[in-house]
Amino acid sequence: MYKIGLVGGTGYTGAELMRLLVNHPQVKLHAITSRTEQGIAVADMFPSLRGFVDLCFTNPSIDTLAECDLVFFATPNGVAMKLVPELLKEGIKIVDLAADFRLHDPDVWEQWYGCAHTCPEVLQQAVYGLPEVNRELIKKAQLVANPGCYPTAVQLGFLPLIEQGLADISYLIADAKSGVSGAGRGVKVGSLLCEASENMAAYGVTGHRHLPEISQGLQQMAKGQPVGLTFVPHLTPMIRGIHATLYTRVMNKQTDLQALFEQRFADEPFVDVLPQGEHPHTRTVKGTNTCRMAVHRPQNGEIVVVLSAIDNLVKGAAGQAIQNMNIMLGIEEAQSLLVPGLMP
Amino acid sequence: MYKIGLVGGTGYTGAELMRLLVNHPQVKLHAITSRTEQGIAVADMFPSLRGFVDLCFTNPSIDTLAECDLVFFATPNGVAMKLVPELLKEGIKIVDLAADFRLHDPDVWEQWYGCAHTCPEVLQQAVYGLPEVNRELIKKAQLVANPGCYPTAVQLGFLPLIEQGLADISYLIADAKSGVSGAGRGVKVGSLLCEASENMAAYGVTGHRHLPEISQGLQQMAKGQPVGLTFVPHLTPMIRGIHATLYTRVMNKQTDLQALFEQRFADEPFVDVLPQGEHPHTRTVKGTNTCRMAVHRPQNGEIVVVLSAIDNLVKGAAGQAIQNMNIMLGIEEAQSLLVPGLMP
Amino acid sequence: MYKIGLVGGTGYTGAELMRLLVNHPQVKLHAITSRTEQGIAVADMFPSLRGFVDLCFTNPSIDTLAECDLVFFATPNGVAMKLVPELLKEGIKIVDLAADFRLHDPDVWEQWYGCAHTCPEVLQQAVYGLPEVNRELIKKAQLVANPGCYPTAVQLGFLPLIEQGLADISYLIADAKSGVSGAGRGVKVGSLLCEASENMAAYGVTGHRHLPEISQGLQQMAKGQPVGLTFVPHLTPMIRGIHATLYTRVMNKQTDLQALFEQRFADEPFVDVLPQGEHPHTRTVKGTNTCRMAVHRPQNGEIVVVLSAIDNLVKGAAGQAIQNMNIMLGIEEAQSLLVPGLMP
Amino acid sequence: MYKIGLVGGTGYTGAELMRLLVNHPQVKLHAITSRTEQGIAVADMFPSLRGFVDLCFTNPSIDTLAECDLVFFATPNGVAMKLVPELLKEGIKIVDLAADFRLHDPDVWEQWYGCAHTCPEVLQQAVYGLPEVNRELIKKAQLVANPGCYPTAVQLGFLPLIEQGLADISYLIADAKSGVSGAGRGVKVGSLLCEASENMAAYGVTGHRHLPEISQGLQQMAKGQPVGLTFVPHLTPMIRGIHATLYTRVMNKQTDLQALFEQRFADEPFVDVLPQGEHPHTRTVKGTNTCRMAVHRPQNGEIVVVLSAIDNLVKGAAGQAIQNMNIMLGIEEAQSLLVPGLMP
Repeated sequence: MYKIGLVGGTGYTGAELMRLLVNHPQVKLHAITSRTEQGIAVADMFPSLRGFVDLCFTNPSIDTLAECDLVFFATPNGVAMKLVPELLKEGIKIVDLAADFRLHDPDVWEQWYGCAHTCPEVLQQAVYGLPEVNRELIKKAQLVANPGCYPTAVQLGFLPLIEQGLADISYLIADAKSGVSGAGRGVKVGSLLCEASENMAAYGVTGHRHLPEISQGLQQMAKGQPVGLTFVPHLTPMIRGIHATLYTRVMNKQTDLQALFEQRFADEPFVDVLPQGEHPHTRTVKGTNTCRMAVHRPQNGEIVVVLSAIDNLVKGAAGQAIQNMNIMLGIEEAQSLLVPGLMP
Repeated sequence: MYKIGLVGGTGYTGAELMRLLVNHPQVKLHAITSRTEQGIAVADMFPSLRGFVDLCFTNPSIDTLAECDLVFFATPNGVAMKLVPELLKEGIKIVDLAADFRLHDPDVWEQWYGCAHTCPEVLQQAVYGLPEVNRELIKKAQLVANPGCYPTAVQLGFLPLIEQGLADISYLIADAKSGVSGAGRGVKVGSLLCEASENMAAYGVTGHRHLPEISQGLQQMAKGQPVGLTFVPHLTPMIRGIHATLYTRVMNKQTDLQALFEQRFADEPFVDVLPQGEHPHTRTVKGTNTCRMAVHRPQNGEIVVVLSAIDNLVKGAAGQAIQNMNIMLGIEEAQSLLVPGLMP
Repeated sequence: MYKIGLVGGTGYTGAELMRLLVNHPQVKLHAITSRTEQGIAVADMFPSLRGFVDLCFTNPSIDTLAECDLVFFATPNGVAMKLVPELLKEGIKIVDLAADFRLHDPDVWEQWYGCAHTCPEVLQQAVYGLPEVNRELIKKAQLVANPGCYPTAVQLGFLPLIEQGLADISYLIADAKSGVSGAGRGVKVGSLLCEASENMAAYGVTGHRHLPEISQGLQQMAKGQPVGLTFVPHLTPMIRGIHATLYTRVMNKQTDLQALFEQRFADEPFVDVLPQGEHPHTRTVKGTNTCRMAVHRPQNGEIVVVLSAIDNLVKGAAGQAIQNMNIMLGIEEAQSLLVPGLMP
Repeated sequence: MYKIGLVGGTGYTGAELMRLLVNHPQVKLHAITSRTEQGIAVADMFPSLRGFVDLCFTNPSIDTLAECDLVFFATPNGVAMKLVPELLKEGIKIVDLAADFRLHDPDVWEQWYGCAHTCPEVLQQAVYGLPEVNRELIKKAQLVANPGCYPTAVQLGFLPLIEQGLADISYLIADAKSGVSGAGRGVKVGSLLCEASENMAAYGVTGHRHLPEISQGLQQMAKGQPVGLTFVPHLTPMIRGIHATLYTRVMNKQTDLQALFEQRFADEPFVDVLPQGEHPHTRTVKGTNTCRMAVHRPQNGEIVVVLSAIDNLVKGAAGQAIQNMNIMLGIEEAQSLLVPGLMP
């Protein structure tokens, strides 16, 4: 049994990690930390975990975390970078669910996150944890930067097209719709039921922090060529789910896009390409690590539309983190993650 | 007091027409028809109208309808065209909320609606009821084809750009999100709360019936030049509201788009352009006839993003129909339509 | 035009007062205060009011408020009592939407609200603003304590039975379900969409602050006899609406309860008794000042079940406050309040 | 591996059975039937099951079902009774999720379900499948009548009080709130998102079919004494969950109700009694077989309030059916059912 640490257990991604880990047969939660809630029983805060987690929140301490085989960070951006260097020295494996190690360039971090990166030297060893792209690197990684929720849905959707040079990468559009849990468990007026339900709105059109992360990933797929991406996120009145609708011009109208997508993901346990003409519904992936997608070329024109649906808290956060953990620890990659969606 | 007839009063647009008309000081509901519910009190079917509507549903008869000054059709597509020619002969004014008279070309109708148009000769006299474009024609019209919900949100958003030749009309993208009331009050599995709530999905990517309607309108704005439009509608887990996110390449990056939009709609009572950098929320127009919009050019690039929000049952249907009625009858255009949104 | 002041305009009841007042032909908003938001345009905080309210929030000052004919307090509990005595001296009429003046006994106030009442001498002149019970007193009142949302729904439902001595007042049960807007616009974890949607839960079973208010009102109906009330509120996953389900033993099984209820409310503009056997839906009163109810005696037994539905922000707060204002100012009682519910 | 048949696989309880069974290590789905959908792949109807169920719906045939070790009926009321006698003869074990075998008295069935029972002789051998009451009988049963959703929540909540003679059984009130999935996947106007969301309403106050089922169960707990139950169900705007709020007079105010409840359910894997003063939230049991409850005596009075929360599709239907299957087949009772709730 591997010992697992969780730094920052009071948010939705932390709670989701616990939900998924408690039934994993090869790991055991060893420490769950929270500066603000130390001493409180985890199951008192999250009654859904009564009978499954009997730990209390503790203050994050290197000593306790160093007893773990792997530590998840489900902390706000900027927290992990302060503890990670020391844990790396202790030989601990780390999956960071925040943005701290996602961007290769510390200057880009500073530009988008508003503060200097405190351990830029560690950035080079961090592997971006999108298994469908970087599986081999993840196997050997000590530090994995778990992708953001939007970046997961958008990158997987564009992946087959860009890899094959089939997209007009100068003009990519990602119109993404997210459930409110993406905004976290922190209190803000905009996340209140009375504000967010029965409402649809875009936000951050001028520039969302996931834009550089997505661009970096797409550029890697394009073998370094710069990409022109317009990314517009929307807050959608539901708890879970991201639906990304992706648009680009296809460079070769003869390509069988359906076959391309099916072949690209044939061996991926967590990407499901729907039959031609169908539309993925986010609810079919609720509670699961699956990215369900479809590819369309409306009226046989030059515009290709990719529809990509995930559960933002699972494939977009905690599930993908456990997928990365499984890969890093040599456990079967899909262990404890293959379940049908909660429907209805 | 003008006498008003309503053919097809059992759906959501019919109910919304009644909600808005009962407090209109210059009109009076004279007949409300339904083939299936005749004899039933309207307020028994819609208890929200108890005390406001004391009529029963009647069978649609030309005699009764001919007593009206103006008749609304809130019927399924293909019904109005069977009664309209006779009513026109009687001199009755008509606003059709269905699609029967929206497309100028009967062949396009047949292609998208699957049956031959039964009165193609009437199509020429029908005026497309988007007041922001066709106000002067509506004043003189006897038959107004009330725009669809998506077409209203999308056309108003593109209007200033296309009119001024500022959009790359070969590559227009309209990613639209609609509340479930757009699917009507008819029973279908996909509209059940258990299917549609906590879910986000695109539909009709291959080709939605509103596509030719929107294209026709945009082409008119472009002075007849053909437009290349990709239109992807999405079902959103809320009752009311459409949010259209529109993308195109701007042809002149020097243009002050904010000023352009503000000036274009300065005199429009039902279009509200938000200050620079803001995002319209559909809930701010809930129950109102307002289209609230914002225009963005992310990171000063060449892509322009227009956000356009309406209540699909009001500006997208019943409210715009009453706006058209007011114009046609010489009543003040905004009469009984200027109310704040129901918030929260 | 009467000049109206609003102290505390940033919450949902404040916003709802503004929504309803802007179209009232005999009053005009003169001042809208907020200590925290002074200088901010009201319509910037509530875009649904763009074009309807052009005031900015100001600091509450006696001077400005004294220019008003009537002032609404939509402040947290305990705020109004600090300003009301001075405004009363200035001759201003006041409707307080908080709890400050609802309880006759300052000791009961202190017990339930946790602090001493700062102007107990004013309590005697305050009239409890339930027009269906106290209309004549309200006409002459200078200070009206607007009832709470639950108390409105519960008291109106029990009213005909208790007035006629038909209820076993030793054993009254009020099981009430409220939308989340009842919890206000303040940020708390429990009001987040992710916590409150897709969830049903009771709260405050041990004792909710509305319990003494309801008991006081029911006791008055019972001509001073003590009542035994169990009141259990529930948080319901919707924005607006309260549904109270009331249970008691009927003291005379021969009474025609349907006739009793219909007669009691025959002249009330805002109480609608449904026909025998029906069930009120909160959505039929959404956005309206109506209390819609039904009375049942299941299987002709001795238990009577009253179903009472209101919009908590209208009849349960802002609408009833304006109804009181109309009565106090000699305006037609239903002015600007008679509208059909927003359906769907 | 036990072979499992499922008759009626197109509704929500059928889909939920499949969701829960696909990861059960000791059983295998052998046949899934539907008269209307035969030949259709199950995963085409329920994309959440893609990769987990590769069967097609077949016509229900005794031959195929007789190959199974156990057959679930998730059919409309009145269907199972036509096939069950023959399957019993074949020695097949059966769990019926409909109401066909819940009521002991065929006359009561006929009174509430409007048609004669077609195999009244089988009723005697049917065991009512509430394991917390009838576990030993279930072990030996060939035919288990799986309890209704409301009856499960209500009976478990009243159980400790009535068993111990502590409730005034002449005056029991069960005010129950259910998510919309309880109404099934059949299309009806009242289950549309636009009708059921943002709404709260009681229904069936005059008499709901679950009333005789609950009364029969409570009477058994009361050792045959007749009970006086008022049961009012409410439709709540959410997908899953039942919250039952139960009221009665406690017969002995000295009893430590908290201890009573904790002890009664100490060995029950699927009943969780919360600490004193807490309130169960339905979302904490979403997707799980747990009944979470709390017991209150407000202000130390004589009224006891029990709060009982379940997922209507799991403990209220499919989960309890699998719990019964596990017991009947000698599998560990909690096998594949112990998971944390999906939160948020």
